[in-house]
Amino acid sequence: MKPIKSIERLTAAFRKLPGVGPKTAWRYAMSLVDADDETAREFCDAILSVKREVHRCIKCGNYTEDEICETCLTRDNSVICVVAYPKDIPPIEKTGFGGVYHVLGGTFSPREGRGIDDLRVAELVERMKGVKELIIATNPDLEGEATALYIATKFRKLYPDVKITRPAQGISVGSEMEFMDEATLTRAFSSRREM
Amino acid sequence: MKPIKSIERLTAAFRKLPGVGPKTAWRYAMSLVDADDETAREFCDAILSVKREVHRCIKCGNYTEDEICETCLTRDNSVICVVAYPKDIPPIEKTGFGGVYHVLGGTFSPREGRGIDDLRVAELVERMKGVKELIIATNPDLEGEATALYIATKFRKLYPDVKITRPAQGISVGSEMEFMDEATLTRAFSSRREM
Repeated sequence: MKPIKSIERLTAAFRKLPGVGPKTAWRYAMSLVDADDETAREFCDAILSVKREVHRCIKCGNYTEDEICETCLTRDNSVICVVAYPKDIPPIEKTGFGGVYHVLGGTFSPREGRGIDDLRVAELVERMKGVKELIIATNPDLEGEATALYIATKFRKLYPDVKITRPAQGISVGSEMEFMDEATLTRAFSSRREM
Repeated sequence: MKPIKSIERLTAAFRKLPGVGPKTAWRYAMSLVDADDETAREFCDAILSVKREVHRCIKCGNYTEDEICETCLTRDNSVICVVAYPKDIPPIEKTGFGGVYHVLGGTFSPREGRGIDDLRVAELVERMKGVKELIIATNPDLEGEATALYIATKFRKLYPDVKITRPAQGISVGSEMEFMDEATLTRAFSSRREM
């Protein structure tokens, strides 16, 4: 049966979404074929609207529709939580963190072609006035640790009075000793705290 | 943290896709936020293109970019396979069926507010010239059976020389007797064939 070109084009577009395989992409495309014109129009407008209105905050690099985001404008600027990507922020928000953020735009990763110059480190240097603590919350993996070490070393020299911290690493809540991996357990033991 | 209106709008649009919950919709929206303008533009154009170019074949009711689809124009019109929806066609195509199709646009379902007048039955009557067999391939459920019975009764009166058939119901290939449901087994036994 002759394939329908416009449906194949839309299926191809849907395949670019994360985790969407050929069958799911086809189902999505077909649901839009069946949908009324208004739904399709709204979908388009929503996509164009996002590209038009969403920028990065010039201070912290998180997503915003403004030039400087509300968080940077209204929250306690003396504690900055440094993260790799905007998507790292929502979970940290849930802890009740009341300071501001700084998005690096990635981690130091020669393997992926990212050098320190590709990260927003200069922008962090520019916003250190009045800062008392830098929490470096990159992932506890090779690239995250390397990035954290680089920033800690650099900023300790430039700003010796600023506290530089990193979230604790150890056994996650609800897990079982029996199934813990060696690296995590080793780190949990070496960072043990008095009860 | 202040939610970003345009991202919420795009997330809401993605939630309309089949099987997409709030978290997945958000992931899809964020992937478009991160994508380049060209990808977003192409997505839009693909959506508008589908609404503009995809129609229903005026003969069989399947999707096509033409007025009459290639299947109706080129295939053996003497055997018509009647289905409820366009999505029922691809699996039947895979059996190697060489005739044409007729999409009813649904099944007779008072519960869902669909009467016989809402189905493309008149369009089927209009295309019976030269037809030797009608295969009624609606689902083997309550509404599908009721629809099949209605069509068989009506067309047997109007066209007594046309063979009216229905795909066999029974145990699906690869299944096990032990786990068969009563209704399917009963039907399989009552339609038993000589080996």
